[in-house]
Amino acid sequence: ALPFVFISGPCQIESREHAFKIASFLKAATDKAGIPFIFKGSYDKANRTSLSGQRGIGIDEGLKVLGEVRDEFGCPVLTDIHDIEQTRIAAKVVDIIQIPAFLSRQTDLLLAAGETGAVINVKKGQFLAPWDMANVASKIASTSNENILLCDRGTSFGYNTLVSDFRGLPIMSQTGYPVVFDATHSVQEPGGRGGSSGGKRDYATALARAALAVGAAAIFAEAHDDPDNAPSDGPNMLPLEWVEPFLADLKAIDEVAKSRKTGYGF
Amino acid sequence: ALPFVFISGPCQIESREHAFKIASFLKAATDKAGIPFIFKGSYDKANRTSLSGQRGIGIDEGLKVLGEVRDEFGCPVLTDIHDIEQTRIAAKVVDIIQIPAFLSRQTDLLLAAGETGAVINVKKGQFLAPWDMANVASKIASTSNENILLCDRGTSFGYNTLVSDFRGLPIMSQTGYPVVFDATHSVQEPGGRGGSSGGKRDYATALARAALAVGAAAIFAEAHDDPDNAPSDGPNMLPLEWVEPFLADLKAIDEVAKSRKTGYGF
Amino acid sequence: ALPFVFISGPCQIESREHAFKIASFLKAATDKAGIPFIFKGSYDKANRTSLSGQRGIGIDEGLKVLGEVRDEFGCPVLTDIHDIEQTRIAAKVVDIIQIPAFLSRQTDLLLAAGETGAVINVKKGQFLAPWDMANVASKIASTSNENILLCDRGTSFGYNTLVSDFRGLPIMSQTGYPVVFDATHSVQEPGGRGGSSGGKRDYATALARAALAVGAAAIFAEAHDDPDNAPSDGPNMLPLEWVEPFLADLKAIDEVAKSRKTGYGF
Amino acid sequence: ALPFVFISGPCQIESREHAFKIASFLKAATDKAGIPFIFKGSYDKANRTSLSGQRGIGIDEGLKVLGEVRDEFGCPVLTDIHDIEQTRIAAKVVDIIQIPAFLSRQTDLLLAAGETGAVINVKKGQFLAPWDMANVASKIASTSNENILLCDRGTSFGYNTLVSDFRGLPIMSQTGYPVVFDATHSVQEPGGRGGSSGGKRDYATALARAALAVGAAAIFAEAHDDPDNAPSDGPNMLPLEWVEPFLADLKAIDEVAKSRKTGYGF
Repeated sequence: ALPFVFISGPCQIESREHAFKIASFLKAATDKAGIPFIFKGSYDKANRTSLSGQRGIGIDEGLKVLGEVRDEFGCPVLTDIHDIEQTRIAAKVVDIIQIPAFLSRQTDLLLAAGETGAVINVKKGQFLAPWDMANVASKIASTSNENILLCDRGTSFGYNTLVSDFRGLPIMSQTGYPVVFDATHSVQEPGGRGGSSGGKRDYATALARAALAVGAAAIFAEAHDDPDNAPSDGPNMLPLEWVEPFLADLKAIDEVAKSRKTGYGF
Repeated sequence: ALPFVFISGPCQIESREHAFKIASFLKAATDKAGIPFIFKGSYDKANRTSLSGQRGIGIDEGLKVLGEVRDEFGCPVLTDIHDIEQTRIAAKVVDIIQIPAFLSRQTDLLLAAGETGAVINVKKGQFLAPWDMANVASKIASTSNENILLCDRGTSFGYNTLVSDFRGLPIMSQTGYPVVFDATHSVQEPGGRGGSSGGKRDYATALARAALAVGAAAIFAEAHDDPDNAPSDGPNMLPLEWVEPFLADLKAIDEVAKSRKTGYGF
Repeated sequence: ALPFVFISGPCQIESREHAFKIASFLKAATDKAGIPFIFKGSYDKANRTSLSGQRGIGIDEGLKVLGEVRDEFGCPVLTDIHDIEQTRIAAKVVDIIQIPAFLSRQTDLLLAAGETGAVINVKKGQFLAPWDMANVASKIASTSNENILLCDRGTSFGYNTLVSDFRGLPIMSQTGYPVVFDATHSVQEPGGRGGSSGGKRDYATALARAALAVGAAAIFAEAHDDPDNAPSDGPNMLPLEWVEPFLADLKAIDEVAKSRKTGYGF
Repeated sequence: ALPFVFISGPCQIESREHAFKIASFLKAATDKAGIPFIFKGSYDKANRTSLSGQRGIGIDEGLKVLGEVRDEFGCPVLTDIHDIEQTRIAAKVVDIIQIPAFLSRQTDLLLAAGETGAVINVKKGQFLAPWDMANVASKIASTSNENILLCDRGTSFGYNTLVSDFRGLPIMSQTGYPVVFDATHSVQEPGGRGGSSGGKRDYATALARAALAVGAAAIFAEAHDDPDNAPSDGPNMLPLEWVEPFLADLKAIDEVAKSRKTGYGF
């Protein structure tokens, strides 16, 4: 089996310089660990908890930076889109189009994404069961685009809290599409700070190990050089200094999991 | 205090003839009961569980029918929109623009809706806490449009199930905006039939009485002449023959609740 | 249909004097409102969040006070028990034996309670579905004691929070046994203060109205002359001064609900 | 760090012969894998979903079998108790007294268990948060017995379903007590078959790997030679033929997890 892929980057593309700094660090760390790397960055945070949350650099500038990151570091790049027009524009630049969790049931957006021919990483809505993702994937696959990733970023559990149900990974794998575990958003506390989301990054790393032990194909985890002052998702992003030891452990877990025995269930 | 408002209609505008049939019935029933009536109909079901679910009549034809219903029956009309362009088009015809629950955190859509000047009925995402709706309302109000309705249509509770937390009504009322209880979607079982949603209409009526006893300003409940064969939301829509006795009981509960005593909490 | 019954009293029997004070107030208030009254008091809080929580007056003294309350005020009395021996002792004094929610699946305790011949009020475990209570009731009914009340006191919803699912009342009613809604424990926040439970009494009154609108046969709500300084359940108990206006509104809702129309689901 | 411990056995002690068969198999398999083994068996199922569920062999015969298993196979033995008297009797025979999840808040039972001086394995109630277990452990520790294990067997998630929140393991570890993950009860569907519980054993093995990757000290997993015909917990118990490959994978995951790097959160 192939080793797991690490999808990482800052929550927002804050500037060309900042994106390059993070990408450079992550590319070196993943190269050192022997792990495939995909750079993730958002040009717009379209569903902030409150209006005062910072939105982002915008699609034109954001896609320009993403293209430059790919050229400079030789890694695929991923961004999330929020409507059909953005999807078509972004697909001209990025390798992977990401459908946000809140939009995972919007049929026209899924179809438009599929039709671009890009790889589509669709996040499971916090309001969906793992088995509901087969219907979501079918919408995309109806465009004859089978380059689909299914991503778990947590499920609603009471108010302002998510829980990661690891039964969901083998359930989603039964579609035949690779399953991604989004470790940093899974520990978000949505709206938990009143006007913004909270989170507990300490648990993200433990959950990422769990996801690989279960059999995830990729780990998604946002990282930042100064998460406590980041414009979004600060409480759950990983500081860069965590990345190297974290990746080493992930790789060791993944090697065991990918060579696991047969004959006993999932 | 004003009496409660009844927002009702078929899930989908199936045809001009069908919409008129339902509107005519509901208008007569609400007139008889002395309850203000708003007609609701969707021209597109944009987030069906699976691709095979029927989408709807389309925006042009749908808005035409809604305009004709208003002219014929003299009632305000409401429809739900799914992107910014639709919002601007629909606001030229309908009195109330509805933001679907899945889209309740999409900032640009909320702003575009607010800017139309229409009344905005925004459904609480199944993934949001009642207190999170203050931030949602603030996004709309930032456009200087204070014609906002906050609508509860259930909260994620395990998989394929919603629960109605009636603490949420007084919590959302603290924003100062009227609170609507959507009785029929609250008893939906999202994705519960595999390729479509299930539901239990029997409970919708009990929950509607509860909502008025708590203090809701309006009840939203979809109704249909043949719900078991409706193209969407059949398991939870009310058959027309339920409407008259149901409204009579709602009115009696509402009268007690609207004149309730002070001095003891909510 | 019979009017609803009001089950109330302090969480703990703090002393004979205190119990009489509360019982006297509640008896007068319910007499004035024309509502049947059952006095509730606990002699032991056997499952406090932490060891430092105050336990109670003890079974001997507690039952003595309960017997005296009944003699003085002419109302039935209810207490909760925690093991088989206590059940047998308590049943000699009280009219209604209450099975705590955490113990609602303990077969031997249910059988022992049933065998006393007392009325048994069994609370739905926070971990049980409403339909699971049919099995619980059957355990009791197997002793040929059909004097069973099924009581909803909330369902686990994320951590340290309960939610009241009002679909549960008609579901439990299908057993044929009367359904009680416990308004003050339903708004508890279990363990929510670290070493003790929190709660929000403001919502208890709204939920009680909702329960009667749905069709509950009885409302359970603890009341205290100084809830903020009570030894247990302070955050959710009602202050005595709320009782009179609250009961007046409950009665009005109940009258509407008990005479509700037929022909439209629950 | 010490390797993980495997706690296993049939749900019920069905007979001396059956217990010996299972214990013999498990002892050989754990010896081969180099994993410490604790035998688990229940003499009474005191909280079956319905009255028709088989209760068990009884305390006298059950404890006799457990003592003989220990003598024959040289492994510690564990059983669960349901009241104070049973606790004192069982502690004379078994090494580990287990407090059932439903009883995890019963103060007197926790104190009685602590006072026996036995190791106490207390299961987190399905209605408790992981941080609530610090209060539970303190009740036991107040008896000067610090031989405490904290065990996660799932948390209520909607109706008839549990979810395993793996953030809970590091949270409970902060008490300083070893944390056990109960893999087979975590995939139970309580009451899910109407008159009995369902479950999905296929997921138990994946969740056990996840728990060790996170850092659990022990895995609890019931096993049976014919689970589909077992008198209780059949749908979630592991068949014996799964045990050997499962243990090999668990051991490999555990070795990685126990030697994991520092410097990056949990």
